Amino acid sequence: MIETKIIPPAAGAYAYPLLIKQLLLSGVRYEPGREIVYADKLRYSYQTLNQRIRRLANALTAAGVKAGDTVALLDWDSHRYLECFFAVPMIGAVLHTVNIRLSAEQVLFTMNHAEDDLVLVHDDFLPLVEQLQGQLTTVKGYLQLTDETAAETCLPVVGEYEHLLAEAADQYAFPDFDENSVATLFYTTGTTGDPKGVYFTHRQLVLHTLNAVGTLGAYQGLPLLRSDDVYMPITPMFHVHAWGVPYVATLMGLKQVYPGRYEPNRLVQLYREEKVTFSHCVPTILQMILNCEAGKHSRFDGWKMLLGGSALTLGIASEASARGIQVHSGYGMSETCPVLCTTYLRADDLQQPMQDQLATRIKTGVPVPMVDLKIIDAEGNDVPHDGEALGEIVVRAPWLTQGYLKEPQKGAELWQGGWLHTGDMASIDARGGVEIKDRIKDVIKTGGEWISSLELESLISEHPAVMSVAVVGIVDEQWGERPMALVVCEPGHYLDRKLLEAHLQTFVERGRINKWAIPKQFKFVTEIPKTSVGKINKKLIREEEMS
Amino acid sequence: MIETKIIPPAAGAYAYPLLIKQLLLSGVRYEPGREIVYADKLRYSYQTLNQRIRRLANALTAAGVKAGDTVALLDWDSHRYLECFFAVPMIGAVLHTVNIRLSAEQVLFTMNHAEDDLVLVHDDFLPLVEQLQGQLTTVKGYLQLTDETAAETCLPVVGEYEHLLAEAADQYAFPDFDENSVATLFYTTGTTGDPKGVYFTHRQLVLHTLNAVGTLGAYQGLPLLRSDDVYMPITPMFHVHAWGVPYVATLMGLKQVYPGRYEPNRLVQLYREEKVTFSHCVPTILQMILNCEAGKHSRFDGWKMLLGGSALTLGIASEASARGIQVHSGYGMSETCPVLCTTYLRADDLQQPMQDQLATRIKTGVPVPMVDLKIIDAEGNDVPHDGEALGEIVVRAPWLTQGYLKEPQKGAELWQGGWLHTGDMASIDARGGVEIKDRIKDVIKTGGEWISSLELESLISEHPAVMSVAVVGIVDEQWGERPMALVVCEPGHYLDRKLLEAHLQTFVERGRINKWAIPKQFKFVTEIPKTSVGKINKKLIREEEMS
Repeated sequence: MIETKIIPPAAGAYAYPLLIKQLLLSGVRYEPGREIVYADKLRYSYQTLNQRIRRLANALTAAGVKAGDTVALLDWDSHRYLECFFAVPMIGAVLHTVNIRLSAEQVLFTMNHAEDDLVLVHDDFLPLVEQLQGQLTTVKGYLQLTDETAAETCLPVVGEYEHLLAEAADQYAFPDFDENSVATLFYTTGTTGDPKGVYFTHRQLVLHTLNAVGTLGAYQGLPLLRSDDVYMPITPMFHVHAWGVPYVATLMGLKQVYPGRYEPNRLVQLYREEKVTFSHCVPTILQMILNCEAGKHSRFDGWKMLLGGSALTLGIASEASARGIQVHSGYGMSETCPVLCTTYLRADDLQQPMQDQLATRIKTGVPVPMVDLKIIDAEGNDVPHDGEALGEIVVRAPWLTQGYLKEPQKGAELWQGGWLHTGDMASIDARGGVEIKDRIKDVIKTGGEWISSLELESLISEHPAVMSVAVVGIVDEQWGERPMALVVCEPGHYLDRKLLEAHLQTFVERGRINKWAIPKQFKFVTEIPKTSVGKINKKLIREEEMS
Repeated sequence: MIETKIIPPAAGAYAYPLLIKQLLLSGVRYEPGREIVYADKLRYSYQTLNQRIRRLANALTAAGVKAGDTVALLDWDSHRYLECFFAVPMIGAVLHTVNIRLSAEQVLFTMNHAEDDLVLVHDDFLPLVEQLQGQLTTVKGYLQLTDETAAETCLPVVGEYEHLLAEAADQYAFPDFDENSVATLFYTTGTTGDPKGVYFTHRQLVLHTLNAVGTLGAYQGLPLLRSDDVYMPITPMFHVHAWGVPYVATLMGLKQVYPGRYEPNRLVQLYREEKVTFSHCVPTILQMILNCEAGKHSRFDGWKMLLGGSALTLGIASEASARGIQVHSGYGMSETCPVLCTTYLRADDLQQPMQDQLATRIKTGVPVPMVDLKIIDAEGNDVPHDGEALGEIVVRAPWLTQGYLKEPQKGAELWQGGWLHTGDMASIDARGGVEIKDRIKDVIKTGGEWISSLELESLISEHPAVMSVAVVGIVDEQWGERPMALVVCEPGHYLDRKLLEAHLQTFVERGRINKWAIPKQFKFVTEIPKTSVGKINKKLIREEEMS
């Protein structure tokens, strides 16, 4: 270790550990009267938010929660969720944001694995929790969350949220503690194995928030976040803290709108009634908003959107833009808190017509400040930034999960070589723009090179005979792997299969592709296997090919 | 200590200490071609900046600088200063930014007290350093900084800066080390005693920078900093890192203009030629810019300015605003890195005409995010936020000096009770606006209350017979202290002194002032004692009254 100059602090000097409670200081000073809105059910000021967080801390303490305990939350996106984002970590406990879209079996696994002590459960999820109750091995109590009239339940609840808050004292002296204390926990699901617990500390969340305020606020062109914006999340709060933006919005003192369930017509209505100006969502939700009953044929002027989670197509971006939405992209994952990259527009980009800007706006973007990001090959060597060569994205940043809960082996794999491995394959162009091309498990390793299965699919899908296509790598003695394509033909296409295969091979060859990247084999099928969430099940395809 | 959940990191997980080198990551990615300009002498890109910082690290290492050493810098505001802000701390050494405006005796004191190892000295300061050389007890080497042709010197210099950089390798693997390592050091001077060494760590500078990007970037109305702004500092880089903004500008990838010496006509010329859009300065400099040959009768459209250091009068703010300058205020001090408060304009403020906004814009502002700030009375109790009651500002923030170098007693006084004592007396209004009213040593403690000497001076100065006035507290058996006013009369004023005293007492009484706050004694003088920097020397006045 290098010997630098470290001076012990003067007597009395306050070391200032980075704690979530500090994110609350500024919003209420800037905008004490600004509103927090829960759909059409409740609205109150920042002054009330701060008071309610103190009341909630008292209610949780009365329910037996101590520092180091874990509090599970099953709720729709609401003011209560926001209050828990603060109050639970601020008393030194861990907030487990339960993924309510998992199967009952997976919810049970995560709650036992997290060792939840108290469970906050919305009426809508009472049937689920009642069903699991007998198998929850660590839970000591339940607290009921109700929108209108509390549902009947056989759970031994300590009381109802609003009722307990009303009864609780509105003062609470939030303690200081180690900034490396775990604040939040949630589970990420892959295609295989049990869900994995991803966790973030107070320090990490404070740093992610401070950096996001600058990144989102100081954009060239139209900044995504300014102090007069109105924020409504449309990625769920149980998933990586709604991308961390509720913390950002609270620090800035923005008006915040929590929509409850994500019903597209309802979201459109809230955009109009509450004058929402900033949201983040996945492309599928954007598409639903554009096409739903309330949204279709409508304009959405003044709505700035950060899109992420999966690739944004030019088609959706163009449609959204034509209807008044300012489109930006972000990139990150559960393990990265999540923000790693966002769209960055230079002065010359901004002088182009919007239609030309969209090519930049739909890409993964440029790494944000404090993020050290590179692409590496299978041997760990840096891959050139030529916009072509593929490498796995590995990152360092002050807000990355330091492992998976109680899974040291999986954590060590994630952090191989001191860099967090995203599993995403990308190129980086000369201007620093990152473009995700594939997942590493789906990339085809052939002739010492990596080929993106997604790029091949995109190329093949342009042929008029092809309705849908999936490309996977299959073992090849000479090349290591060779691509194989599964094709569903357009109905009414009668060309001989052998002839069509040759056609498609020539078609692919014209697309600036190396010889070894041309699929040697095309298989014509009536259906492509999909996973439960509608993605191509490449794992299954590979298994079937190998068996 | 509270028992929270702390999880050891997975094998290989990178802990990411907060280090200044990380502030360099993003600017060059966002804007590789953006320029760093040194007046009319040199301009280069961010790519070159990053390369030069690596060359400088090699040159410093070759000159014998090791981690833990201290490097002194005597230079005008330049690209070299910016490069040293990065390269010196990035190799683990401490950058001592020498205040070139101090007396030779004080410079000598600070350089010996800091235990400087290597001295980087601009040609213009060679005579000073040559004169001190024999008395510098720790210095092992000198490095010459030259704008054009190197001056002759008897100092044993290792070489000239540009020459050494040209010779040095352009790769350097900057090491990781403890984020609490000291990065920078400079001296603050009071009216009494030796200069005191104030120091900041890597962690503190990173946190100050991240917070400032958000604070300056996400303003309501016109944000002070966006990625297309052009930055030129007009507070010296030796003083609290030019308010930390060079780090902010570099992180964002802004065009930066370093003006060398602060000659008002030259600053106006640089504003015009380089299209500067953001600067920070003290009110005196702003006034000089408005009134200098090149500036008078000119407009300064598009120039946003953050004013601080001393109170901004409505007169100067109005003049600047009428000529196109966007005026904001900031508050902080050497010990606070410095930013604590900045102007915050709410939606209703922004709807007012600019002339009405100025009353808010010239005030101290609202504490920025992460700053915990309160006003307390002499017993340490909180003072109400009614816009009237005075208290001393005490603060906590993640970027406050943790003491004074080698002065544990003074450090403990600064941090009494776990809060940094600013020595500034202020009120806070119901809207959270802080307004500095006085220095605590100048405030008058009378009848159990604190009276601002500045407010009394302001009131008395409104009387037509008064040309200038100074108010100090003098010991009073009944009241503790009573105010005493020294008055210089307007020339041609012939009223009897006794009569004028009574007049002024009645005049003050009308100004909503408590009875005990009315100066019992007015002294009519021909001159008010001033310090070397032109401030009223209240210490001297009090001493003369007591003797």
